Amino acid sequence: MTTVTVLGLGPMGHALAAAFTAADHPTTVWNRTPGKENGLDVTTAATAADAITASPLVIVCVRDYAVAQSILDADALKGRTLVNLTGGSPQQARAMAKWATEHGIGYLDGVIMATTDAIGGPDAALFFSGPADLYETHRPTLAALGENARYAGDSPGRAAAFDASLQDMLWTSMSGVVHMFALAKAENIAAADLAGHAKALLGFFPDMIDLLAEQVGTGHYPGEHGTLDSTAATMDHILDAIRAQNLDNGVLSAARAEIQRALDAGHGSDGFGRLAAL
Amino acid sequence: MTTVTVLGLGPMGHALAAAFTAADHPTTVWNRTPGKENGLDVTTAATAADAITASPLVIVCVRDYAVAQSILDADALKGRTLVNLTGGSPQQARAMAKWATEHGIGYLDGVIMATTDAIGGPDAALFFSGPADLYETHRPTLAALGENARYAGDSPGRAAAFDASLQDMLWTSMSGVVHMFALAKAENIAAADLAGHAKALLGFFPDMIDLLAEQVGTGHYPGEHGTLDSTAATMDHILDAIRAQNLDNGVLSAARAEIQRALDAGHGSDGFGRLAAL
Repeated sequence: MTTVTVLGLGPMGHALAAAFTAADHPTTVWNRTPGKENGLDVTTAATAADAITASPLVIVCVRDYAVAQSILDADALKGRTLVNLTGGSPQQARAMAKWATEHGIGYLDGVIMATTDAIGGPDAALFFSGPADLYETHRPTLAALGENARYAGDSPGRAAAFDASLQDMLWTSMSGVVHMFALAKAENIAAADLAGHAKALLGFFPDMIDLLAEQVGTGHYPGEHGTLDSTAATMDHILDAIRAQNLDNGVLSAARAEIQRALDAGHGSDGFGRLAAL
Repeated sequence: MTTVTVLGLGPMGHALAAAFTAADHPTTVWNRTPGKENGLDVTTAATAADAITASPLVIVCVRDYAVAQSILDADALKGRTLVNLTGGSPQQARAMAKWATEHGIGYLDGVIMATTDAIGGPDAALFFSGPADLYETHRPTLAALGENARYAGDSPGRAAAFDASLQDMLWTSMSGVVHMFALAKAENIAAADLAGHAKALLGFFPDMIDLLAEQVGTGHYPGEHGTLDSTAATMDHILDAIRAQNLDNGVLSAARAEIQRALDAGHGSDGFGRLAAL
């Protein structure tokens, strides 16, 4: 089995190392603060450079790109493959790919859309981007992290771009969920009484995602399933309800302001997908 | 069968009248602009007051509460039941209930969470609030609008409060969906390539809604499934990606600002549900 190095043993790095050892890959680890390898059947290296030279495949998963860059030894990495699973933006991924290429390091950028306990299982969604041949070479080893891995393309920022886009939807939506509960609470509706209705409403989301994908993809924004004019009126009702309870209204007000830009540009009779083309 | 009056024949009012006639209720309609009763087997009244006096049950569904109030004749309505399906805030519903009671008018406030083509079918979710006996009296007639009707309680603003809360989540989430597609497009990812992943991500939403409902309901916000500190870091990555593409970042920035208030108050290690209690 291919030997693997994991740099960074935070909760996610620890889960990655555990998944590699569970798949019988001899694994070397390093963490800035020692003693984090508890419960792992791994070799602990004294320095990051020692850890890097122990394997042809080096995984880095630390807090951010600045930390990653500070521990990545270009001389030690030369001729090896670096898989960066540190969270960051597409721009950061592209910059690090450029640095790696300049130093003769094979580079794959990856993102993990999963909690630590899902790593290695079918619920862990992973995206990788970078040179296709490099991905093919290491795909069998990376499969230890989860069978639900997708190759997003050779542009190094592409995995991070998928991640940023999906997380944009996720965290905007979660803000909406928690604000829904806050408004309901102010109106003496218990969260437990609302949760079932909220989940029922989710049933319409797949069709709405498809509808918006079609509008954005084709550049045509028919208003037959709802116009920006009517959405603006609905949001105004909700904002009235939020303001009457003296709750923070920043998120929905920002969404309303974006619609106003579309209305001011004469797109009031268009569908909601128009907002992606302002 | 009970006779019914429908005031307002916009797309939704038209669908309501069609559903009542489909259920064999003799229906009288009135609309400010005449000629909107096309395709309906109804009696058209010359004035709103004439329409009101034709039935013991009067439905009003117009653009907003100001329009509704302008056409509701208190003398004609006295002793009848008014069901207001006009979209508005809980505060507006409470104010109109007060007005109705002062004039001897039975009042139920209702909300429709459905598109016009779903009215009368199983996908139309309706909420009603107001006196329980009044709802029980008219429930069999109102059932023509959809079998999925819920009685939300006797406080008149409660149906509108359910609606405002759920729509808060819905439209905040839809802003996230369309922004996801905008960011992906800027990163040369086609909407069609992303839609499937976005729908897969929806699979985690029911559990997250339950988790947040529990946190808000109990007032305990454990960070074991993710802390506000980690969410803030994730949002910063996404915001970097959005800003690098010169896209509008108002919605996610507002969500990030709300988290910052929680961090500044010392809640960084709490779970996301803490945001409902700032």
